[in-house]
Amino acid sequence: MDLKALFHPRSVALIGASTEQTKLSGRPFRFFREFGYAGNIYPVNPKYQEITGVPCFAKLSDIPGEVDLAVITLPASAVPQALAECGAKGVKAAAIISSGFAEVGGEGVRLQEELKRVASEYGIAVCGPNCSGFVYFPERVTASFSVGLDGGFPETGPAAFVSQSGALSSYILGAARERGLGFRYWITTGNECVLSFTDYLQYLLEDPEVRLVLGYLEDARDGQAFQAAARRALILDKPLIIMKAGRSEAGAKASVSHTGSLAGADEVYQAVFSQNGVLRAESLDELFDLAILAQAPRRPRGKRVQVVSISGAAGILMADVGSELGLEFSDLSPTTKEELRKIMPPFASLTNPMDVTAEAVARPALLSQAAEVILKDPNVDNVVMFFGIVPGAHEKLATAIAQVAQGTDKLVVMNWFPLPRTEIWMSLARAGVPVFPEPARGIRALAKMAQYVATRERALSRQPGQTIKGPDLGSEVEKILALARNQGRNALSEVEAKCLLKAWGLAVPRGGLARNAAEARSLAGGIGGPVAMKASSPDLLHKTEAGVIRLHLNSPEEVERSFEEIVEQAKKWNSETRLDGVLVEEMIGGETREVIVGVRQDLRFGPVVTFGLGGIFVEAIRDFAVWPAPLTLDEAREMIRRIRGYRILTAFRGRPAADLEALAQVLCRVGQLACQWQERIAELEINPLFVLPAGSGVIVGDALVALQ
Amino acid sequence: MDLKALFHPRSVALIGASTEQTKLSGRPFRFFREFGYAGNIYPVNPKYQEITGVPCFAKLSDIPGEVDLAVITLPASAVPQALAECGAKGVKAAAIISSGFAEVGGEGVRLQEELKRVASEYGIAVCGPNCSGFVYFPERVTASFSVGLDGGFPETGPAAFVSQSGALSSYILGAARERGLGFRYWITTGNECVLSFTDYLQYLLEDPEVRLVLGYLEDARDGQAFQAAARRALILDKPLIIMKAGRSEAGAKASVSHTGSLAGADEVYQAVFSQNGVLRAESLDELFDLAILAQAPRRPRGKRVQVVSISGAAGILMADVGSELGLEFSDLSPTTKEELRKIMPPFASLTNPMDVTAEAVARPALLSQAAEVILKDPNVDNVVMFFGIVPGAHEKLATAIAQVAQGTDKLVVMNWFPLPRTEIWMSLARAGVPVFPEPARGIRALAKMAQYVATRERALSRQPGQTIKGPDLGSEVEKILALARNQGRNALSEVEAKCLLKAWGLAVPRGGLARNAAEARSLAGGIGGPVAMKASSPDLLHKTEAGVIRLHLNSPEEVERSFEEIVEQAKKWNSETRLDGVLVEEMIGGETREVIVGVRQDLRFGPVVTFGLGGIFVEAIRDFAVWPAPLTLDEAREMIRRIRGYRILTAFRGRPAADLEALAQVLCRVGQLACQWQERIAELEINPLFVLPAGSGVIVGDALVALQ
Repeated sequence: MDLKALFHPRSVALIGASTEQTKLSGRPFRFFREFGYAGNIYPVNPKYQEITGVPCFAKLSDIPGEVDLAVITLPASAVPQALAECGAKGVKAAAIISSGFAEVGGEGVRLQEELKRVASEYGIAVCGPNCSGFVYFPERVTASFSVGLDGGFPETGPAAFVSQSGALSSYILGAARERGLGFRYWITTGNECVLSFTDYLQYLLEDPEVRLVLGYLEDARDGQAFQAAARRALILDKPLIIMKAGRSEAGAKASVSHTGSLAGADEVYQAVFSQNGVLRAESLDELFDLAILAQAPRRPRGKRVQVVSISGAAGILMADVGSELGLEFSDLSPTTKEELRKIMPPFASLTNPMDVTAEAVARPALLSQAAEVILKDPNVDNVVMFFGIVPGAHEKLATAIAQVAQGTDKLVVMNWFPLPRTEIWMSLARAGVPVFPEPARGIRALAKMAQYVATRERALSRQPGQTIKGPDLGSEVEKILALARNQGRNALSEVEAKCLLKAWGLAVPRGGLARNAAEARSLAGGIGGPVAMKASSPDLLHKTEAGVIRLHLNSPEEVERSFEEIVEQAKKWNSETRLDGVLVEEMIGGETREVIVGVRQDLRFGPVVTFGLGGIFVEAIRDFAVWPAPLTLDEAREMIRRIRGYRILTAFRGRPAADLEALAQVLCRVGQLACQWQERIAELEINPLFVLPAGSGVIVGDALVALQ
Repeated sequence: MDLKALFHPRSVALIGASTEQTKLSGRPFRFFREFGYAGNIYPVNPKYQEITGVPCFAKLSDIPGEVDLAVITLPASAVPQALAECGAKGVKAAAIISSGFAEVGGEGVRLQEELKRVASEYGIAVCGPNCSGFVYFPERVTASFSVGLDGGFPETGPAAFVSQSGALSSYILGAARERGLGFRYWITTGNECVLSFTDYLQYLLEDPEVRLVLGYLEDARDGQAFQAAARRALILDKPLIIMKAGRSEAGAKASVSHTGSLAGADEVYQAVFSQNGVLRAESLDELFDLAILAQAPRRPRGKRVQVVSISGAAGILMADVGSELGLEFSDLSPTTKEELRKIMPPFASLTNPMDVTAEAVARPALLSQAAEVILKDPNVDNVVMFFGIVPGAHEKLATAIAQVAQGTDKLVVMNWFPLPRTEIWMSLARAGVPVFPEPARGIRALAKMAQYVATRERALSRQPGQTIKGPDLGSEVEKILALARNQGRNALSEVEAKCLLKAWGLAVPRGGLARNAAEARSLAGGIGGPVAMKASSPDLLHKTEAGVIRLHLNSPEEVERSFEEIVEQAKKWNSETRLDGVLVEEMIGGETREVIVGVRQDLRFGPVVTFGLGGIFVEAIRDFAVWPAPLTLDEAREMIRRIRGYRILTAFRGRPAADLEALAQVLCRVGQLACQWQERIAELEINPLFVLPAGSGVIVGDALVALQ
């Protein structure tokens, strides 16, 4: 679908345009005229001859010239016909502002289907319906009724905004100028009957003038395309800043009613965001803060921050917030301290955060002088400043800091509370120093941006070869899956699941399936050492509860007796139970940790790998990580580090570290397995996976595979 | 110490006053004159005859009349002498603004000691030194050089502010007016050589005109007094809103260098705050937000919130943030929905959050009409609104909502983004509707305030009798402690610790100390059933590592053999080991949970009870709660619910709930024990404490008592 006609129309028809310029149907026309759109403007409405001096056409087909874009504000029932007329006329793009479609249900759903059909028939790029339209700033394409345009034409800038909300997006547009943010695109997606959030995103990223993209998102309907676009944004270093709503139950419910779509689970979105460096804004304030930082000409160089503050307290607050978010406040080098001693008052302590003290009231240049010295310190990646009220000194300070910032390629961030006059802080912003109105906000934005930079570096350094290749044993996996399908089953037995995982390169316990006591005895003998035995049956999902597990069996007699007991118990539990036999396996013991590794199919993002520690404790604490598959080894390592109880897997309390490398490999492999057989494997859970000490690998304790 | 002279002086001497009105030493005088202080103003400086027409005195003693308050801006070295002259003249209060005292170390420390001595000799209430002074707004007492006064005299209001920061406090003062906040007191505490943060707090709370207190705190030096003051604030319903800095390592270090005092552990502060309903502000924005809500004439009635929004997206964001912070977004009653149907557009869904839709652009009164209906719903405790830009409708809407709010005794909160003109939102604020410039901020403040109300209700309903009285067995505890002291020991043995806890009403396992194998056998026989045995020695702190524990012993032979093994192993571990004998105890098994209960002495707050789940997992996850002792049964229950793994203690996965009541009682008792013997018990840890199923109690597994 070509979106160019949407954003670069040489002419625009306003279908349903009204003379009432305060009405929704009158406003887009007014904005096109008022803000100086250079193409032809054709209002279409049989009621009028002209609107404010511009000739009005009764029908679209009456328009003499070509029309590139139609803005439709007719009642819903009239829209499909109007769109068909657009198609007949050769209109290539339309913004359908009218509501009354899928969001109201019933007849609206049918109307939207019809729209979709017409758009597809004629190949029309449709924005909406049920949206606030869009604006392309450089060419003053104001296909919108937004109140965000009432305060005059907003600042044009390097940001694009794409949103699944109408009203809030207008307020964001209206507030942008005074926050120092300018847009190039502003798009509300509405019901996304043709163009989706991700379609716009893909388009915006390829505009070389767009340097960052902001979004309000309730649901990315095409999850995998969204993921790819987010990854593309990261590679291009165009930060994607998204406010994702609907995390809570109440919010999700309202989100469904709001856009007529089902939202995916928030934790998976969060994983997709983390994986691809999407900056998640938790509030409108943060949306702006992150945008301010993203549009600055420099990125954080790393996590090491030196704070230079006119208030000790503000410095401490920033260190508190920054430390929690992973920034590092390390010591200045001795050379730097020596240099600072020459300019700082004798009683100032050269710590981090550093308080330039009340001396800065008399001598505000202290702040910029200190920053200049500190920026040369190789231990410092970024300088964060805090300034307040110093009567008469604000302009001078802003100029001095702007100069200092221009003499370095490190990032300098200013927190100024309360903000001085707009011209003053804007002059700093123009000089490439992002300014924040509150110290906690500035440091929080910086911390998130430093995280973004680290994620991007990881993404750039990723070698294609680092993704583990599954062993070429797919045919064995295929065979096991085919057998189950042919038998019409929706799950594999434990034995089958283990065979499948073994074929896929995972280690499983030594042992096998015994059909009688003698076989059990012989298997146990072959294993040598204590064994575990459990019933193998497609009907016994909860073996512990059914009492069909025996552990730590040492003698042949115990093994034989256990076989009989298990068979008897399985029948006692349920006389209908089909029994494949009894699994006899080596006991996995010693210094192992039990973890759970799984994959499930997410509605939006396809296969998602989950990982957590095993056991009741963790289940109660809900300590697990999720990650969309496939994942690289690096991402798998990151995933392991993300769980709260990570320390348990490291050398801790005298226990050796667990084999995290082997664990990471399993996460990758399981992800690849689920991707390769996405149509067949609905869910897979290895519980427990025994993780042996470093170097000794991992072993599948039990596994469950559910089929589609 | 009487603080009246500080805040209500009939006359003030400015010692060290300067003609240079931009200098620190010239500014307080200028402010006293400029803002209309009604008492006598006496500048004191041998250099001048007069300052801007006011006669200047060479010495304090030259002043003809009485002086109530001295504001001192002399160099540090001259201050003690000046303060002594104040004493001689009968001055009752002083603000010492000069720096160069304890914060610079060395000679400064000595000078501060001298100040303290002089102040004590004459009974002078001293604010500072090394501070920005203070302001008492109703009488225009401007004993400060703060730049917060440069923009004109700030708004007077019901808030008091007390701060351990200078500069930042000035900026807060400077920013207050435009945020709609007015102060009655503004105090910077400096080095607190005489008056502490808590001293001011106590005083402010008793002023009937003060309705809320804001604070910036690095360290409450008198922790227990602070706690009592916080509790008093809660009872009086004067919310205490505190920004507590120094949580991070970097922040804590800077905090020490900043005020010259050692900060307590943040987790204990957080516990004191939670316990006493202190509202912790994480940022300057939040400090103001909480203050705006606290000064409103109404409090939240409960946690149930109905959102009424002109933007669906803003509603969802508020539901997301609010849900996470414990607010509830439940359904409206059928009656309310019926009423709403009459006024709302047919396509609006009456959910929570509720979107009044774009219809509100044409008919903004929809918002206030909907609110009016909803406020009558008994399922709704509070109404939170969101409004944006609707050209021309802002005044009308503000008026309508103000009217609606005045017709209810429920809290109505407005989030308005972007904020309209100041007069408009201020008019709403004056009508008792707090207004927030960002939806996430408004809902966050509301959630914290709802939590405050719940804490206050709990505090008010607490009956003195609910505190568990320790059994009258203190004499036994005393005996055990005395014995250890007489022997010069700094710890109790496990046997002693268990005797002590038993005396204090806790259950310990049945059993006793065996001195030989025969005694062990006889003890085991008396117990009947499996026993556990472990070496008892003051020298063996880590019994597991030393290998001197045997569990699950069933037969008399096992018991005898184990006795010998343990004795042998103890000697093998360390030939110097003193052995009291071997402890023979019943095995505690079945459906138990292992938890850890401890008490330690906090530098600021005295005995602090800690509680967490047992085992390596939890230690790695650091899942525990702390609470200052003594605690009531209600507080103990709350403490148990606070840990992340709380679910493990409830009925979960087929296991019965643990005996949480018995556990709560132990937390109370242990707290009382540590309070009663605060001078003697340095630390106590019960690890594990076995918690049996509900109704079956708890049993001390092992206990460690360290003595002062």
